[in-house]
Amino acid sequence: MEYPSKLVEEAVNEVAKLPGIGKKTALRLVLHLVKEKEEKTTSLTEALNKLRAQIKFCKTCHTISDTEECTICSNPRRDHSLLCIVEESNDVMAIENTSQYTGVYHVLGGIISPIQGVGPAELNIGSLLKRVNGGTNEVKEIILALSPTLEGDTTAFYLHRKLKDLPLKITSIARGIPVGGDLEYADEITLGRSITARVLFS
Amino acid sequence: MEYPSKLVEEAVNEVAKLPGIGKKTALRLVLHLVKEKEEKTTSLTEALNKLRAQIKFCKTCHTISDTEECTICSNPRRDHSLLCIVEESNDVMAIENTSQYTGVYHVLGGIISPIQGVGPAELNIGSLLKRVNGGTNEVKEIILALSPTLEGDTTAFYLHRKLKDLPLKITSIARGIPVGGDLEYADEITLGRSITARVLFS
Repeated sequence: MEYPSKLVEEAVNEVAKLPGIGKKTALRLVLHLVKEKEEKTTSLTEALNKLRAQIKFCKTCHTISDTEECTICSNPRRDHSLLCIVEESNDVMAIENTSQYTGVYHVLGGIISPIQGVGPAELNIGSLLKRVNGGTNEVKEIILALSPTLEGDTTAFYLHRKLKDLPLKITSIARGIPVGGDLEYADEITLGRSITARVLFS
Repeated sequence: MEYPSKLVEEAVNEVAKLPGIGKKTALRLVLHLVKEKEEKTTSLTEALNKLRAQIKFCKTCHTISDTEECTICSNPRRDHSLLCIVEESNDVMAIENTSQYTGVYHVLGGIISPIQGVGPAELNIGSLLKRVNGGTNEVKEIILALSPTLEGDTTAFYLHRKLKDLPLKITSIARGIPVGGDLEYADEITLGRSITARVLFS
């Protein structure tokens, strides 16, 4: 695609660097901004600049936060003995939106992936071990809430090995047929696991 | 969706104002920027701010341009007797990418749409009439390249009425079965038109 304007081309190239945005979508977004009032562009870019400059990561659980300690970690009404381990901050938001969880979190900031060169040292695992080894022994249960992929399973296995000798329960989120899901369309592995890991009917 | 951070919420709301971007996609883009280096965000926002502040519209054809007159209008090797009327600047880019057109353009900047309150006065129609009524009588043919929608047809009809008494040819881009399109899947109106507007086999 040739652009009639260097300015448009540069903007399209920048927008197209975002994940899941191709050149055509980028062009549509850029031309939209050109057509709208200049304030629309400045309020967008100001919000992004402000976010990137001021955003913090909670010193305890590493989730994104406006403050040194996030609203979940600093909430005394949360169950601090229940610790849920997730890959990224958006997993925290997803679980929070279920309103089913009252414990706290620990964000790994990624997942062990030898192909992408991510090892345990790149993740927030050291601070996790410090957290559960702390003098207070506050944490009683760790829930592994990682994606059921090769990398997720590798990370869960690594964490299990590191944690298994500590006096705490290690659980994993349930795998099975999604609610509303049709048995016919479930893959064999999920369906097989849902049978071997069957639970009492209640 | 609740966000753990006001900064994230504000950024998501701004990004979600873009056309075709919902809250979930906006969150994914925003979290991507948070994870990447700060320079990635600043180079994106700088490109957008620079674009919006410096972009111009060609004084002759109204397409977006870095200069007062666009590279097409100022090119003496283009056929200035052939004038193609389009809705927006991206239509110019689309036609330019076919490499099949050597004439010049006129961008209306929209389309007549009574529902959205867009009348002829809101579009670049006055400057078009001035352009074709100019002393030089340079334009010999006008090509209407508008979308085959109700609004596009209304606009084409309006322009035809305004232009029909001038000593120039008025044509429209061909409608028919797309190249590579299967007859079976074409709608009846397109298929019907492609038969009534049949052309000599060559």
